[in-house]
Amino acid sequence: MSVGLGLIGTGFMGKAHALAYRAAGAVFGDLPEIRLACLCDTPADRAAAMARQFGFSRATDDWRALVADPGVDIVAITTPNALHQEMALAAIAAGKHVHCEKPMALGLAEAEAMERAATAKGVHTIVGYNYIHNPAFTHATRLICDGVIGRPVHFRGAVDEDYQADPDLAWTWRARRADAGLGTLGDLGCHLVSLACGLMGPVKSLIADTQIIHATRPLADGSDGRGEVENEDAASAILRFVNGAQGTLVSSRSAWGRKNKLDVEVHGTKGMIAFSQERMNELQLYLNDGPRGQQGFRTILTGPEHPPYGAFCPAPGHQLGFGDLKTIEAANFVRAIAAGTPAYPSFSDALAFEAVIHAIDVSAREGRRVEL
Amino acid sequence: MSVGLGLIGTGFMGKAHALAYRAAGAVFGDLPEIRLACLCDTPADRAAAMARQFGFSRATDDWRALVADPGVDIVAITTPNALHQEMALAAIAAGKHVHCEKPMALGLAEAEAMERAATAKGVHTIVGYNYIHNPAFTHATRLICDGVIGRPVHFRGAVDEDYQADPDLAWTWRARRADAGLGTLGDLGCHLVSLACGLMGPVKSLIADTQIIHATRPLADGSDGRGEVENEDAASAILRFVNGAQGTLVSSRSAWGRKNKLDVEVHGTKGMIAFSQERMNELQLYLNDGPRGQQGFRTILTGPEHPPYGAFCPAPGHQLGFGDLKTIEAANFVRAIAAGTPAYPSFSDALAFEAVIHAIDVSAREGRRVEL
Amino acid sequence: MSVGLGLIGTGFMGKAHALAYRAAGAVFGDLPEIRLACLCDTPADRAAAMARQFGFSRATDDWRALVADPGVDIVAITTPNALHQEMALAAIAAGKHVHCEKPMALGLAEAEAMERAATAKGVHTIVGYNYIHNPAFTHATRLICDGVIGRPVHFRGAVDEDYQADPDLAWTWRARRADAGLGTLGDLGCHLVSLACGLMGPVKSLIADTQIIHATRPLADGSDGRGEVENEDAASAILRFVNGAQGTLVSSRSAWGRKNKLDVEVHGTKGMIAFSQERMNELQLYLNDGPRGQQGFRTILTGPEHPPYGAFCPAPGHQLGFGDLKTIEAANFVRAIAAGTPAYPSFSDALAFEAVIHAIDVSAREGRRVEL
Amino acid sequence: MSVGLGLIGTGFMGKAHALAYRAAGAVFGDLPEIRLACLCDTPADRAAAMARQFGFSRATDDWRALVADPGVDIVAITTPNALHQEMALAAIAAGKHVHCEKPMALGLAEAEAMERAATAKGVHTIVGYNYIHNPAFTHATRLICDGVIGRPVHFRGAVDEDYQADPDLAWTWRARRADAGLGTLGDLGCHLVSLACGLMGPVKSLIADTQIIHATRPLADGSDGRGEVENEDAASAILRFVNGAQGTLVSSRSAWGRKNKLDVEVHGTKGMIAFSQERMNELQLYLNDGPRGQQGFRTILTGPEHPPYGAFCPAPGHQLGFGDLKTIEAANFVRAIAAGTPAYPSFSDALAFEAVIHAIDVSAREGRRVEL
Repeated sequence: MSVGLGLIGTGFMGKAHALAYRAAGAVFGDLPEIRLACLCDTPADRAAAMARQFGFSRATDDWRALVADPGVDIVAITTPNALHQEMALAAIAAGKHVHCEKPMALGLAEAEAMERAATAKGVHTIVGYNYIHNPAFTHATRLICDGVIGRPVHFRGAVDEDYQADPDLAWTWRARRADAGLGTLGDLGCHLVSLACGLMGPVKSLIADTQIIHATRPLADGSDGRGEVENEDAASAILRFVNGAQGTLVSSRSAWGRKNKLDVEVHGTKGMIAFSQERMNELQLYLNDGPRGQQGFRTILTGPEHPPYGAFCPAPGHQLGFGDLKTIEAANFVRAIAAGTPAYPSFSDALAFEAVIHAIDVSAREGRRVEL
Repeated sequence: MSVGLGLIGTGFMGKAHALAYRAAGAVFGDLPEIRLACLCDTPADRAAAMARQFGFSRATDDWRALVADPGVDIVAITTPNALHQEMALAAIAAGKHVHCEKPMALGLAEAEAMERAATAKGVHTIVGYNYIHNPAFTHATRLICDGVIGRPVHFRGAVDEDYQADPDLAWTWRARRADAGLGTLGDLGCHLVSLACGLMGPVKSLIADTQIIHATRPLADGSDGRGEVENEDAASAILRFVNGAQGTLVSSRSAWGRKNKLDVEVHGTKGMIAFSQERMNELQLYLNDGPRGQQGFRTILTGPEHPPYGAFCPAPGHQLGFGDLKTIEAANFVRAIAAGTPAYPSFSDALAFEAVIHAIDVSAREGRRVEL
Repeated sequence: MSVGLGLIGTGFMGKAHALAYRAAGAVFGDLPEIRLACLCDTPADRAAAMARQFGFSRATDDWRALVADPGVDIVAITTPNALHQEMALAAIAAGKHVHCEKPMALGLAEAEAMERAATAKGVHTIVGYNYIHNPAFTHATRLICDGVIGRPVHFRGAVDEDYQADPDLAWTWRARRADAGLGTLGDLGCHLVSLACGLMGPVKSLIADTQIIHATRPLADGSDGRGEVENEDAASAILRFVNGAQGTLVSSRSAWGRKNKLDVEVHGTKGMIAFSQERMNELQLYLNDGPRGQQGFRTILTGPEHPPYGAFCPAPGHQLGFGDLKTIEAANFVRAIAAGTPAYPSFSDALAFEAVIHAIDVSAREGRRVEL
Repeated sequence: MSVGLGLIGTGFMGKAHALAYRAAGAVFGDLPEIRLACLCDTPADRAAAMARQFGFSRATDDWRALVADPGVDIVAITTPNALHQEMALAAIAAGKHVHCEKPMALGLAEAEAMERAATAKGVHTIVGYNYIHNPAFTHATRLICDGVIGRPVHFRGAVDEDYQADPDLAWTWRARRADAGLGTLGDLGCHLVSLACGLMGPVKSLIADTQIIHATRPLADGSDGRGEVENEDAASAILRFVNGAQGTLVSSRSAWGRKNKLDVEVHGTKGMIAFSQERMNELQLYLNDGPRGQQGFRTILTGPEHPPYGAFCPAPGHQLGFGDLKTIEAANFVRAIAAGTPAYPSFSDALAFEAVIHAIDVSAREGRRVEL
């Protein structure tokens, strides 16, 4: 058996997918052969050049041709969010498995349509919530499942970056709801939800508030004009989880100095776990255990004890990188396809994540508690 | 001129006050003489023993006698919260200046009565929000005032400890609203509010939720019975500040591993400040300034550049301790009395802090936005 | 043009080389085509299986056949250190470029012979000192070159792991000088020297001491016998650099809790740089610059400002991993071959690094200063 | 019983002593009464003013009068190092107990004379190695004694500040051996030795090197002249301890960014302890214990579990400051005097510490191993 990849897009995430699928088979010994079948981008000569660099067999500037390519089994979608739905629906209709970047779509209704189509067609799906594949994070979920910190009773999460912190940054389409959908919630917040749900289970209801920090931005057209920012720079929510716990989610795209802050902590009845993606190879664990005078948060450096770290490196403390998370994601998807079992997070799983960010948006705009 | 101290209580905060007033004059060269006039505790022999240890001239087991003592100019109240109001009102009535531990009272109405009485009588007051006297924190407020991080646009705050984390801890009066008032909000949350207001100015409105993590606790009477916990173990709030910024306040008394976590961060348009009380001699500062490849959060170690650190030690990085914050607080109060100017935070200032925690409680119980 | 790789070994470093050469062309757009031509290991079926997994065209259990393979341009040697010399000399004799893991050989004389042969033959060489390719480290060297911290006047370095910390670990050939050569100096210490020389330039002389912490270890043969440990568990040296600076190098393979500690700091006349490989995506920089009250060590998170980070990921703070360093190393070697310029660190460069660890050994054994 | 303090000096250390003796009795309930009997400084009006501020009964500008004062039982010496010996010998001759700041004297011979005199006279002595009284450090020594990290086999220590880092700083008497004695070794290095000996026991022999980083400094006399720096800016030593362990001591007074770096780590056969004075309320502990995937360095925040922290504050994580260490030191001295037992570190203990820094100096100047 072999699996052919058709990849749409060659930007940040496009390259990340290409490198991941290229590496996955060599890292993990248990995968079917992965063929880099077809790469799509525009214009055609960029597609051709990147196909050469990434090692794809074919290149095209027509994503519908890629979807129709009989050598393509997986369609990986890394285009701007507004394009996800149309491409995913076409791929599903063609019976292809779909690896879609997050968020699935601009609005929840579109994402729901994608999920329904995939379920109806029976294809495999996965959404690019790559941080949940980090061995440090996986280990955190395992510790919770094993009861190491007791019952999880409280949650804290924050995800911040600074790519919109500069007040003088020019207005772009990213600020328009019709083009970009949500702001920091769509870019960053949904990642945090994926971690929250992985650690705490599903969200039951929430209250929230959002903030547009920079109400307008200078137009890049050389005029003195300014464009309106329509979506949130920052968002805050207080959650009630189905398991009875409470917690908070906060996010900002205008937080100077934060480059990939994605911090979570889970308060348990016997201990605490804390994790920070900016130090993605470390896990903080406190246990109410042993002599009190020797208790403290321990910094666990990931290693072969934390699968699948060992597939990359047999020595602890040597560290995985962002790209390796994408490789784990790709391997998980190919493995699920080969086994005929659902990948995680499928469109169904991701829909639950994304429902939360839209609920935050609704709660903030309507000033009321939203049930999920 | 000299100032006589009458101190009620010899527990955690009582001793802290005694040490602080004892040290203040020696640390700071500009204060009037401070006399440790009278110490009150029960029983009388404990009062006498502690007076001997702390260096007070007189001891009593009758706080009304202390209030009436003509050698007492300042009445410092460090008794359980339920007793603050009665003692403060008596001291004010006797024309004494009042140094009251936080929170001022169990309920907001009692605190308001205290504030009105003090204002009417014209005595000086200060409330024990000691963390705002930390030179690292003071420096943070100064950096914001000076515009170093631009306009403050977003706030994050967390205050956690673990003294109620153990599910097997026995029930005490602390769990009963009638005796203890609020839970984590009264013990910890109000400290966080004092920092938030110091950095961001007053709060305009908020939404909130609270959580009782351990619904019952075993009774300590040897029976198998369990007592109900009536006040919150954890609380979360989303704030709107008068200056237009938003932010969050979260607090838990059941957070394993946190011993004195009191973390704040202020997002500005030009940079960010972050501070963590568990590393109270450090301040984190990020500036969007200089070569981008050299930007990063800098860890500023406090030193003589951060007054009044230098009064304790002329060498940076040598570190102040918790007790030193109390010494600064005591000195500030004595200095204000001598100068005839208001101390900070006075009953009026503290009332504004404590209004926020009560608003959080109301918002959580009534499920609505509360205006301040 | 294309470059064919012949890789000997499929263990920790063998896999790291395979993944690196597989990824390099896709990560960097400026490289000639890299063919994974031939993989050698024993037994033959393991070689075949790993060739399939890693994507090599051919497999063999005869390293001389790999060296003779006309499709092989680069011979990458990842076998135990005792085998490096013979393989490298054969590859050089066959006119192949050599990518050799560190240390080059058990003894300095063997390494010198390798260097002479390579120079005489005019082939390209590189030695696997992968940590010097870390963008954070490269940035540190650039800051020093640019005078950002002034003149470098003092150096500190430490490299520790805990793979020989357990006293009950069984004796292996690693403990015998004839088989393994040096102890912690050969495994870890030479990496530290590569960083030291990159930051400070060449070493002039040194004094040193070494320590065998666990004098004997239990034999794994089921007997009660114990084998002697002949090489050092820990080593310490005080260096004088050619540039007039002094500094220290310390290393232990028996340091519980250290997984990949590789810490350096450079004291300059205007500031300091500190780097720790266990947080390989961070660089610490202190500058005596700006208001004193705002000075502090800043934690720089690597990003596109620190080439070649951007070839992996356009977003800062997302982090590279250990494998990515190997990819940079492989790319640098292929690029040098294509350009006909020396790679860094060539056999000549690495010889200078390894001369230092042997000088440490000599100084410790003979109790005298050793000039380099 | 009561104990009268005579304090010579009102600078950095003078004030630290005054505050410490003032606080000690109130902090600790088990001490005899401490009287602040007499304060000496020049000129007389400064002595009088500071006596008033610190609460001393008498002031003088004649240290011999202070020594002769019958109300003085303890003579605390905080004057420049060159004056220690004469004052200490006079105090001893007068039968006074002596609390001397470190280092005891400029040279080892003077220190030895002081030790002999004190022993002969039978007075109590203590030297101001305040960092060893830190509860975090005391806890570290206890953990080692209890075998928690197994047998201590290796040591690392560093002590750095930046008060001589600026090349443009003017020349002072501190740079002249005849006036100041050693450089960084006398100021900082001896503190590190006190920690090393506390953790590892006595040093047997060592090799060392020292460095004058800034060979000359501008004269402050307005001329263009430059003065020679005669004593070391940086020093490095490799130690062999009596217990068979090895280790390193490094120190610099010209290390930009370090304000009070005083870092030690002890490698044991079962774990590791690391401590950093710049985070003086934290202790790092790694144990090879429990599930491997959960092992990591734990950050222990000091609290009442770490005596005598609880005498200052019953709540963990609230933190002691530098001044509190001095208070513990003073209390320990008074307690020893009252009990008639030796204080730690006495002149005898301190002599062993200071012998090490002089041995480092000798080894560096003579290029040979020095036995202790």
